Amino acid sequence: MTSFRAAMPDARHAYSELIDFARGCLLALDVDSEIAAVVARRVVDADLYGHSTHGLALLPRYLQEISQGATARRGQIRQLSEKGGCLLWDAGMLPGHWVMDQAIRAALRRAPQQGIVSVAVRHSQHIGALQVYLPDLTEAGYMGVLWATDTKVRSVAPFGGLDPVVTSEPIAAGIPTRGTPILIDTTTSLTSNSQVKQVQARGERLPWPVLLDAHGCATDDPGALAGDAPGSILPLGGVTHGYKGYALAMLVGAMSLGLPGLGRLSGEKAQGFLLQVIDPDAFAGKEAFLDEMQALADATRASRPIDPSRPVRAPGDAAWARAARQRREGVLIGPDIKAGLAGWARQLGMAFPPPLP
Amino acid sequence: MTSFRAAMPDARHAYSELIDFARGCLLALDVDSEIAAVVARRVVDADLYGHSTHGLALLPRYLQEISQGATARRGQIRQLSEKGGCLLWDAGMLPGHWVMDQAIRAALRRAPQQGIVSVAVRHSQHIGALQVYLPDLTEAGYMGVLWATDTKVRSVAPFGGLDPVVTSEPIAAGIPTRGTPILIDTTTSLTSNSQVKQVQARGERLPWPVLLDAHGCATDDPGALAGDAPGSILPLGGVTHGYKGYALAMLVGAMSLGLPGLGRLSGEKAQGFLLQVIDPDAFAGKEAFLDEMQALADATRASRPIDPSRPVRAPGDAAWARAARQRREGVLIGPDIKAGLAGWARQLGMAFPPPLP
Repeated sequence: MTSFRAAMPDARHAYSELIDFARGCLLALDVDSEIAAVVARRVVDADLYGHSTHGLALLPRYLQEISQGATARRGQIRQLSEKGGCLLWDAGMLPGHWVMDQAIRAALRRAPQQGIVSVAVRHSQHIGALQVYLPDLTEAGYMGVLWATDTKVRSVAPFGGLDPVVTSEPIAAGIPTRGTPILIDTTTSLTSNSQVKQVQARGERLPWPVLLDAHGCATDDPGALAGDAPGSILPLGGVTHGYKGYALAMLVGAMSLGLPGLGRLSGEKAQGFLLQVIDPDAFAGKEAFLDEMQALADATRASRPIDPSRPVRAPGDAAWARAARQRREGVLIGPDIKAGLAGWARQLGMAFPPPLP
Repeated sequence: MTSFRAAMPDARHAYSELIDFARGCLLALDVDSEIAAVVARRVVDADLYGHSTHGLALLPRYLQEISQGATARRGQIRQLSEKGGCLLWDAGMLPGHWVMDQAIRAALRRAPQQGIVSVAVRHSQHIGALQVYLPDLTEAGYMGVLWATDTKVRSVAPFGGLDPVVTSEPIAAGIPTRGTPILIDTTTSLTSNSQVKQVQARGERLPWPVLLDAHGCATDDPGALAGDAPGSILPLGGVTHGYKGYALAMLVGAMSLGLPGLGRLSGEKAQGFLLQVIDPDAFAGKEAFLDEMQALADATRASRPIDPSRPVRAPGDAAWARAARQRREGVLIGPDIKAGLAGWARQLGMAFPPPLP
């Protein structure tokens, strides 16, 4: 794999052409055109922000799920209930990027009246990278918190345990400031399933021993997660403090599967999520909120770095800067991602866009 | 210190007598009788649940703050606004245990109508251990999430940084099940200020290198946090993954100081918090929620332990069992805690209750 990568280095591609490619693939599989446009943009946005494990790398999987009928090509999201700022949706296995996009729109419409809007969603397909949705909220002056997970994936064991129960159970939050927003997107485990798979496919080792093998020993071997005697991903906090990360994982489970009422008990394979959009004006007001959050971000960035060559950043700073640069100069796409799409492109009569000169 | 501890081992004291002692001390300082009763019980509840760093160990500090006027003895919490399920309170530096108790009552009253009630509070005094409030919510069938912090304490540096910006920024959450509730109470740092101080007072070392010294090197020396060149507490995730914990810490700051509109910018010394009470009936319903959460807790406890002598527990299991036992058999109180209270007891004419036979 290393020689393949060396022979075909990452190349930059025009943002809009990548979106056109993804949309073309979706349309070729008869996905509704409005849905295809949104999904294509959100998928490429993951690469734009630097989440290369959750962008075009997952498009082959998405196309497979569509072609097999596991993802709906069109249809309505059903609103099962609405009470105050609380909404319950059944997304009917529509593409998660579309579902999240619609949830954001619904929440933004209601936020000025309700103060906090919470949309609990079941039967969503995969949502992709959570961070890419946050600027929609922060640019409107709102804070957004996103709890999401999968009903079926079990890769993270409880602290002190061998058998995995949950998965990386991510939390994302967008916090507006007077400048660059704080864009938090983190797992409650030490790594994600996608990263483990990507590292394994490249024949590499994980940068840290973030897995446990089947005997409960920490390892950096990505192969420990699969195989006949599968291990697990360590919760955030690792072998000494993983009870903290696992506790937070259970909170994510309550929010994203418990409230929508479709979780691991169901035996179904789907994603669940809870989107909370919070209007600071329903509390002490936008001005006080923005001042405090800007000061927090400033103090964070002003903390003297341990390594003088690595200034301290606020969450999302790197992704925000990368997105701005890649929008201008093109989005870096690795050769393994393009290789993974080659079969689908051929089958659907689509050409992957050429690298920028 | 070690010889002192060996000479005076922990002893059990009757729960109700400890509360009477704490209430007596508060009343002797002219604290309103209703407030004193609530504060005394919540303080002792921290010891009851096993949070010995956040119970009677803090009573000398609370008494000091009352006697100096930093904590109000009586007065009304002011409700500054109410919109939908969103409330903003100014607690006028009343004791935090009382303020939280009142916030819980206000939220419980509104939850059936609103679905989610969020109470943002500024100018609270210290709230103590967050876990002790959660059963009030779970026993009523609600989920509760509690974000809290302090405007002034700076002990946790951002990932890769030397200068502390935030503190342990805790998150607590109570999740009802069909049996024992899940009672999450965790910091977004690897330890709390109180634990570091307690370990230092005992002349011990921390169990893990959870601090950074002034040069950014990990250490288990509790003295590294204070002194002329203070270090910091590592965020959850530590030296390799602390960006995750620090990101969550910023989220806690946004919730607990940003929304109440009084944070580190103010220069004031106070606690801020956001209490969210969530009614599963506003989403997919209590039955589905309880089933899913019970299954999650069961699967967690059923995970085969790495060490066969240490079964896997769900968050709160140990505290819940300890509280039940200590209610019956008496609450363990360490000699250093009693020594710390001796001066106040003398001054206020109170006698610490005798150990149980």
